[in-house]
Amino acid sequence: MKEKYVIGLDYGTNSARAVIVSASSGAEIGTAVFEYPSGENGIILDEKNPDLARQHPWDYLQAVAAIVPQALEEAKKSPGFSAEDIIGIGVDATGSTPLPVDKNGTPLALLDDFKENPAAMAWLWKDHTSHAEAVEITALAEKMRPQYLAKCGGAYSSEWFWSKILYCKRSAPDVFYAAHTWVEHADWMTAVLTGTAHPESLKRSICAAGHKAMFHESWGGYPDAEFLTSLDAALGRVRETLPDKAWSIAEKAGELTEEWALKLGLPQGIPVAMGAIDAHMGAVGSGIQPGVLVKILGTSCCDMLVAPLSQKLPDIPGLCGIVPESILPGCYGLEAGQSAVGDIFNWFVSNVKPAGESHESLTEKALKLKAGESGLLALDWHNGNRTVLVDQRLTGALLGMTLHTRPEEIYRALIEATAFGARVIMERFLEYGMAVDRIINCGGISGKNALLMQIYADIMGRPLEVSKSTQTCAVGAAMAGAVVAGAAAGGHDNFAAAAAAMSHTDDLVYTPDAESSATYDRLYGLYKKIHDSFGVEDHRDELYTVMKELLVIRDAAKKG
Amino acid sequence: MKEKYVIGLDYGTNSARAVIVSASSGAEIGTAVFEYPSGENGIILDEKNPDLARQHPWDYLQAVAAIVPQALEEAKKSPGFSAEDIIGIGVDATGSTPLPVDKNGTPLALLDDFKENPAAMAWLWKDHTSHAEAVEITALAEKMRPQYLAKCGGAYSSEWFWSKILYCKRSAPDVFYAAHTWVEHADWMTAVLTGTAHPESLKRSICAAGHKAMFHESWGGYPDAEFLTSLDAALGRVRETLPDKAWSIAEKAGELTEEWALKLGLPQGIPVAMGAIDAHMGAVGSGIQPGVLVKILGTSCCDMLVAPLSQKLPDIPGLCGIVPESILPGCYGLEAGQSAVGDIFNWFVSNVKPAGESHESLTEKALKLKAGESGLLALDWHNGNRTVLVDQRLTGALLGMTLHTRPEEIYRALIEATAFGARVIMERFLEYGMAVDRIINCGGISGKNALLMQIYADIMGRPLEVSKSTQTCAVGAAMAGAVVAGAAAGGHDNFAAAAAAMSHTDDLVYTPDAESSATYDRLYGLYKKIHDSFGVEDHRDELYTVMKELLVIRDAAKKG
Repeated sequence: MKEKYVIGLDYGTNSARAVIVSASSGAEIGTAVFEYPSGENGIILDEKNPDLARQHPWDYLQAVAAIVPQALEEAKKSPGFSAEDIIGIGVDATGSTPLPVDKNGTPLALLDDFKENPAAMAWLWKDHTSHAEAVEITALAEKMRPQYLAKCGGAYSSEWFWSKILYCKRSAPDVFYAAHTWVEHADWMTAVLTGTAHPESLKRSICAAGHKAMFHESWGGYPDAEFLTSLDAALGRVRETLPDKAWSIAEKAGELTEEWALKLGLPQGIPVAMGAIDAHMGAVGSGIQPGVLVKILGTSCCDMLVAPLSQKLPDIPGLCGIVPESILPGCYGLEAGQSAVGDIFNWFVSNVKPAGESHESLTEKALKLKAGESGLLALDWHNGNRTVLVDQRLTGALLGMTLHTRPEEIYRALIEATAFGARVIMERFLEYGMAVDRIINCGGISGKNALLMQIYADIMGRPLEVSKSTQTCAVGAAMAGAVVAGAAAGGHDNFAAAAAAMSHTDDLVYTPDAESSATYDRLYGLYKKIHDSFGVEDHRDELYTVMKELLVIRDAAKKG
Repeated sequence: MKEKYVIGLDYGTNSARAVIVSASSGAEIGTAVFEYPSGENGIILDEKNPDLARQHPWDYLQAVAAIVPQALEEAKKSPGFSAEDIIGIGVDATGSTPLPVDKNGTPLALLDDFKENPAAMAWLWKDHTSHAEAVEITALAEKMRPQYLAKCGGAYSSEWFWSKILYCKRSAPDVFYAAHTWVEHADWMTAVLTGTAHPESLKRSICAAGHKAMFHESWGGYPDAEFLTSLDAALGRVRETLPDKAWSIAEKAGELTEEWALKLGLPQGIPVAMGAIDAHMGAVGSGIQPGVLVKILGTSCCDMLVAPLSQKLPDIPGLCGIVPESILPGCYGLEAGQSAVGDIFNWFVSNVKPAGESHESLTEKALKLKAGESGLLALDWHNGNRTVLVDQRLTGALLGMTLHTRPEEIYRALIEATAFGARVIMERFLEYGMAVDRIINCGGISGKNALLMQIYADIMGRPLEVSKSTQTCAVGAAMAGAVVAGAAAGGHDNFAAAAAAMSHTDDLVYTPDAESSATYDRLYGLYKKIHDSFGVEDHRDELYTVMKELLVIRDAAKKG
């Protein structure tokens, strides 16, 4: 059979990319990237409210229309390739990034009345405006539906679906009541491409539903109406719009419509797989399987494991979720993560702008430092703590500065802090009996930041592998496209076959340095001490309230 | 009588200055500054040991030879002034800044054999190499001579005389055994100018002896030989070289020698007052009296009160000392302080170099922020904590960063941290029954940093006055020169008269803003929480060891 190709569409935080991948070898023959034009790096901000982060859905439509034709253009340079060789499409996007849509499935922000209204746009994963609502949902679930919390790590997050909808009802009731329902970004994309955006035909993916919206088959899907209306009677109308079923990436969302086939230059009718959250698709693209921890290291970090559905799993406190088939069909998907990793280094370079240094120059100097020699220790909570504390009202910290402390020392301490955070997550998995036999890293940072990777290996005390592709999320999406196309069409019949053919790791493996590891073990003990003191409510000291109080004071000052 | 003048010589951390002051009005008619040429900004550093800070005594000699003639040059522009109108000299210097000297009183660093050896130079006040020795001295005194500790706040510091000498014995025995005795910088200066540097004629000031070398009349002067030799037998030979008496600034060190009179262009034989530590002389220059707290705000901060010798004073834990006549004759001198204030802001601007901002541009932006709105909270311990924790093994901290945190927010948080530290000191004084009826500020920062002064007023909740002179230490030294000259010569017979004539405060008084004060009261509560958690050994949480452990790990990493 002639070589066949699949397209992976990956909607990230600041840009979207398309990759055209060989279904037989994983070779990437065409790529294009589109930076979202709205707001600051694609994010609509509010200087009065640092918690707000929105995106305009118009950017999403512009993106796909730009990147698919452009990637095809590049692919056509490969001998023998034609657009007719594309047999399937997969999509991933950030999440939970829900959009309010009207009764036709059109995002409110695409209507004239709402196009400038941030509440009517996509509520980006890192929007934390609903922190009070997250606390409220957690508190009610503790009393009324503890099983809901057990599957999402013991606390509901302000980054997630229901917190955002509830806050919208309170802060922007006009938008809330104009919305018929709310749709995750990835689900809206697959619906658009397949002409199924109308709420009656829309299919929702298990990935976002299960990890971010408290969907679980064992209680019949989304949270029940009694629970939701106890939060706010108005949530009943949202609940009514949600189906009882959610779909894994082994299923089709539908087929590419004629309109989009023309717009993109692709064959009409090719299957589009159900979407998933970008990180989960990255795990697929990295070849996740039981015993393999996949870390997506980018602006934030997502840690994923899978376990066969036949295995009896405990609830693991602090995880973002344990959801059947959320990552791979036939397996539980376990998600953990850090709310900020690369974002913290970017903050230091772009906001603090130390001595006009770049990431490159700071890295060069930080490489010359030994573990522990700066005397610094940081907490990686600049964007809250997702795992294992599940608390967006935590903030960053840096300890140990003297009058001699230099920027590269701070830079290295920030990297170390994220590595300590990564170790906390791994240890939580191990503590609850999950096997971690291999660790595969992917995402922007893993392939290009040898300093960080070595520090992570030293601090985690494990060899770290790196995914060969630099766009693993898009490759995972493409694998989903290959699976919904099927082996008969030149794709694959399951993800094991797709991974064997399309997913590869690099020859370079980072292995721990014994001396650095020993020093980092001591520092990790100190990290855990401050982590627990500032982060754990029932810890015996009084510091748990400090960061939260600071935010209360901050918010009062900004209002005053 | 024709108008008479006095000279104040002020040896600071990075430079020395001479000021020619009218004894009748305090008018300053001539000033000159000399930046020490050695090392970095006058300080010899060691990149392998960030605790080390030394100065070369040659810089001190060059300084006086440069600045006195230069100040005279300027003074001569005042109608009728001639050098013959100078009737006295006073001197202050940083402390404890001891120099090892040979049996002729010559600093070892001025001898060919030792001129490049940092151990043979002046051990600058902020040298912290002897932190282990400070702990050792404190521990022994607790057991053997608790009365020694009671007068210096409960802990002996690595910034002080005996810690430094003991560490020198252990780290540079060649220097230790070549030294006949050790002399404080200010005492060496007055001895040089009056030809009394020979150990048999040398007079030592009560200020440094009492606050930094455990001198107290009640136990017969310096610490007894049994105590010192229990620390190290070799300290016995140093003890033998020390006299039983120390002198207040109301006493003469001697008269200006012919050699120095010629070199400086001054009348031979004019009286030179006993020296004092710069901050104490600043308190004198600011018009200190019972009930007036004087704060010298510069690279570090010194807080001083005096109380009549007739008053019964308790020992106050955490103070640097309570010493009869150390500031004013007839009064107890009480000293507290912060190891770094301006140094912390300088560190941020010069080491971190945020976004290429200057103090001025950061100040302009920080002025627009409201109390509390950054969500940040810092600890002002970048150079350890002098009062009330007396612990050089504490380091800085910054809490509350988000991905939106900006340099001016950090800058303001650092200023606020030093203000919270200032409030801790004031509250300690009040708690032990000392009156604080007025607060007069002097030193480089007080006259030129309105942002800081307003924040201090808001956080301390008190009106803050500012000394009119920008060189209050030098004015205090000049006042001592006027008192040793006496009223008959055109000077004054006592410090009350000298202060009335020569010391003035500015019309501008910073008064607390009610709204900011209320916010800062909340933040101060949080500051106290982290202050005690990280700084107090018997606090109920486990954070007391964190900063110390970091330094242990740092030191091991640097050696490894």
